[in-house]
Amino acid sequence: MKPLDLLIHNVQIADVVRLRLYLGWVGIAQGQFQYVEEGPPPTHLQAQQILDGQGQTLTPGLIDSHMHIESSLATPRRFAEAVLPHGTTSVLADPHEMANVLGAAGVRYMVEAAQGLPLRVFTAIPSCVPATDELETALGSITAEDVRALTQLPGVIALGELMDYQGLARGSQRLKRLIETAREAGLLLEGHTPTLGGTILSDYAAHGITSDHTLSTPEKLLEQLTKGFTVMLQEKSLNAAVVEAVRGLPDRSRVLLITDDVMPNRLVSGHLSRIVQLAISLGWPAMDALASATLRPAMYLRRPELGLIAPGRKADFLLMESLSAFPPRAVYVEGVEVARSGQSTFALPSPLPSPTGGELKRPGFRPEDFQFPIADGSHPTRVIRMNPQNSFTRLETHTTTFKSREPTDPPLATIGVFQRQGHRPGALGLLAGLGLRSGAFASSLAHDSHHLLVVGRSTQRLAQAANALLVLGGGMVFADAEQTLTLPLPIAGLISDAPTSEVAVAFDNIENALRANGVNHKNPVLFLTLLALTVSPEVKMSDLGLVDVEARRIIPLFEQSP
Amino acid sequence: MKPLDLLIHNVQIADVVRLRLYLGWVGIAQGQFQYVEEGPPPTHLQAQQILDGQGQTLTPGLIDSHMHIESSLATPRRFAEAVLPHGTTSVLADPHEMANVLGAAGVRYMVEAAQGLPLRVFTAIPSCVPATDELETALGSITAEDVRALTQLPGVIALGELMDYQGLARGSQRLKRLIETAREAGLLLEGHTPTLGGTILSDYAAHGITSDHTLSTPEKLLEQLTKGFTVMLQEKSLNAAVVEAVRGLPDRSRVLLITDDVMPNRLVSGHLSRIVQLAISLGWPAMDALASATLRPAMYLRRPELGLIAPGRKADFLLMESLSAFPPRAVYVEGVEVARSGQSTFALPSPLPSPTGGELKRPGFRPEDFQFPIADGSHPTRVIRMNPQNSFTRLETHTTTFKSREPTDPPLATIGVFQRQGHRPGALGLLAGLGLRSGAFASSLAHDSHHLLVVGRSTQRLAQAANALLVLGGGMVFADAEQTLTLPLPIAGLISDAPTSEVAVAFDNIENALRANGVNHKNPVLFLTLLALTVSPEVKMSDLGLVDVEARRIIPLFEQSP
Repeated sequence: MKPLDLLIHNVQIADVVRLRLYLGWVGIAQGQFQYVEEGPPPTHLQAQQILDGQGQTLTPGLIDSHMHIESSLATPRRFAEAVLPHGTTSVLADPHEMANVLGAAGVRYMVEAAQGLPLRVFTAIPSCVPATDELETALGSITAEDVRALTQLPGVIALGELMDYQGLARGSQRLKRLIETAREAGLLLEGHTPTLGGTILSDYAAHGITSDHTLSTPEKLLEQLTKGFTVMLQEKSLNAAVVEAVRGLPDRSRVLLITDDVMPNRLVSGHLSRIVQLAISLGWPAMDALASATLRPAMYLRRPELGLIAPGRKADFLLMESLSAFPPRAVYVEGVEVARSGQSTFALPSPLPSPTGGELKRPGFRPEDFQFPIADGSHPTRVIRMNPQNSFTRLETHTTTFKSREPTDPPLATIGVFQRQGHRPGALGLLAGLGLRSGAFASSLAHDSHHLLVVGRSTQRLAQAANALLVLGGGMVFADAEQTLTLPLPIAGLISDAPTSEVAVAFDNIENALRANGVNHKNPVLFLTLLALTVSPEVKMSDLGLVDVEARRIIPLFEQSP
Repeated sequence: MKPLDLLIHNVQIADVVRLRLYLGWVGIAQGQFQYVEEGPPPTHLQAQQILDGQGQTLTPGLIDSHMHIESSLATPRRFAEAVLPHGTTSVLADPHEMANVLGAAGVRYMVEAAQGLPLRVFTAIPSCVPATDELETALGSITAEDVRALTQLPGVIALGELMDYQGLARGSQRLKRLIETAREAGLLLEGHTPTLGGTILSDYAAHGITSDHTLSTPEKLLEQLTKGFTVMLQEKSLNAAVVEAVRGLPDRSRVLLITDDVMPNRLVSGHLSRIVQLAISLGWPAMDALASATLRPAMYLRRPELGLIAPGRKADFLLMESLSAFPPRAVYVEGVEVARSGQSTFALPSPLPSPTGGELKRPGFRPEDFQFPIADGSHPTRVIRMNPQNSFTRLETHTTTFKSREPTDPPLATIGVFQRQGHRPGALGLLAGLGLRSGAFASSLAHDSHHLLVVGRSTQRLAQAANALLVLGGGMVFADAEQTLTLPLPIAGLISDAPTSEVAVAFDNIENALRANGVNHKNPVLFLTLLALTVSPEVKMSDLGLVDVEARRIIPLFEQSP
């Protein structure tokens, strides 16, 4: 028999094919499972290291098949450090934010930064960069030629979520070329269909797009499965009704659990592990939920070497108190321990130099930059009405009183969106329902184009926050009379190479300050950074002005030109 | 909505993901499903052709994920003509026999001959050619360099069954290089593990081999699934116990139905369809059995565009009276009808020129060529004892009486194995239990090396059959005092470009003559053509002599040298 590097006996092995546990032993050589057997090991086996598993459960490492590392505001190495202890050993990452700022160079940076990590990072090339062509000034863009070049990079296996279903339906030549290039290269085509059904969903699927990860319902899940989709369920899709629908399926091999986006302050409580636990708490049988986070995503990603405790497979595995007892006691990748008791134990590789481009290079802001070009008095004004539960907005027309070029009644927050570099003036808009009493928030992370977003209640605070952000060189700021709180995100103004725990503290400080100053949204920072997302219904702000998302056009702020 | 080439409404659509039938309609454009919807179609749809399905069942075309076209003694175009009417629309073919005669050129011929056919032919490169290095003279061989070159051909997606598990276990450098080359090229590695279990099976799997199609049992099925295998069940593996084990699985996505080998005279009654029907008759739920012959093999073959009635998938489908009512009323490939009511309806492309090499070029045989070099009298002699049910044999030592260099008592058949070309004498052996009273059989199809095999009861008939085979230029012959029956297989002496129905008649004639002359084996021709398979336990004949398969050596015919 083959000499082993590691032998672990007396473990309950999770068999995610037959959905059972069995007492047995595993032998590992050269980073892969050589033996996976029931019962006790033969006595004559040679192994460098022998471990008594003491009846613990041995499961495959978790595989997150749709996610964005930038959502955790982290570089790949810091992300790996944060999620490996929770049992995530592989991800398919779509570096959508880095691409929006840096184009193909942003994708290259993220791929390079993931080399040599114990976390397996596969990459989806972002497909819809920029989100819209004509409603904003794009920093980065991804073309068919970029896709062709990027497929040569290690681990690039997919074209990222095709969010612009309207563009596809209209026959966009750009998307067509992108899809053709991706299909020629054998990439997976990832979908994004929040509202599609019937023949419209079929038209979308007919492009060869085979997954969806947006908010699901039992009806949507069933229709998508029939139409050949792999359905990815994230936190917001998991509820009793959806889990009941999943349990009723005779074959769940095309239902996956994913994270999509995890803010840094959530990472402390888990990663994909938390989604698995949530599924189990809603009645999804534990072993089956585990299969939807291990073997099934491996099959979707066409990585037969992953997701399974079986000979010839990579020895990526977890040692657990029980199937759902996250964090695991120990996490192994290719047979080497990388985390123990919730702490990473691998040597962090050196950081990459920051990529260039996207730097914040503007002259300082003055309070006048946030003044509206309108005479004192009352004017019919288009405002963005927010929903405190989600990122959807409505377009409303208010009669707004202005004094000294600032709105005074009703109490509205001013939104400014400015290009990162140069002297162009940017655009101003008004937000109803935020609840902010004083102070201002500024961010260089503002989906999807990541211009400078500033939201606040007085021209003085708006300028104060915006200038602090310029000094910071990227990140987030909350400024009021007493304090200026900062979260530095020096890499492309989007992510940080600091430990995610530090980032989480700074993030929480800003979010708490927003709440303390009256902001009543469930997720204040997430909501604010989505205010510039020109494809999110029904009205948003870009550097070019107020955006009517459904009509796909810029609309004037004032009903009659002042 | 997209204009359609074909719209079929009022059909029960087989949903092999959710394992259900539903009344709906499909719209086809450019060879793929554009719409697959429940209920009646919208009235405003444009379609070149509209078909009322009259409540028929619409299923995906069948996908045979492990098979050998040569087993049907047919060229790819004749094979397509025979199996499309039975609903087989895709195959993974391993041209193992052509490779044994012609090497890589045999694989190239089979790939080229499959181009332009409505049958989708994917190809597995035969891995164990020749079957053994030292026990016989090989005609063709496949090296790692051949594998590298052949992966460039269209549809080459796998390395064919790695039968030489002993060679692998011994660390054969040839197999190691072959596997490395195949893994680098991203090929599937197909297994063949008739007898392996436990750590020996794991050692085999650790090479990255992920399937097995040999005779299965419930225990073997379950162990292989746990160890990550895709288990392929063929006719001989299907019985009540195995089907019960399959029904007990919570996930059957890694259990497939396959044909492996179908002799030409069986093709009239079906192809993979017959295996599906057999599974259903043994209690396998019909829709689930269908999934194991459609979607599940498509996933195994990593062809997400196949196996499913869903938008974006190839419009390969069957119209059936019911789920198990084979042959289908109509068979469509890429939205075009290719068969109806058991008859192919597509225009057969022109045949390719026959490949060169492997021609039969020997001087004529004389009766003396079949005489044993031994004095008259009784001699302790090693003979091959056959089993009338299968291809296994035992080595026995008989005291055999020879007269005029022919065995006279007990009644034994003489086996001769000769190279196809040149003057080398070949080897003679003796077979017990065949039952042949008179006449002789000759064949240029003789697994795996396909030398000339001659089996018969008198030197005169042996020479008569062998000479008839030389005249035929390849194929099979039965000769006795009254008649010389022939089945011409002019292409590499293995296959024919005649319609399979004609081949089946000639094949039946020979098999019936063998039976009429006393042969008592269940499958006379199959058994005889496996007599030279030097890896099939326990004793076989090669052109070099009597082969002890387990010991992997040539042994003398007579216990004491004469």
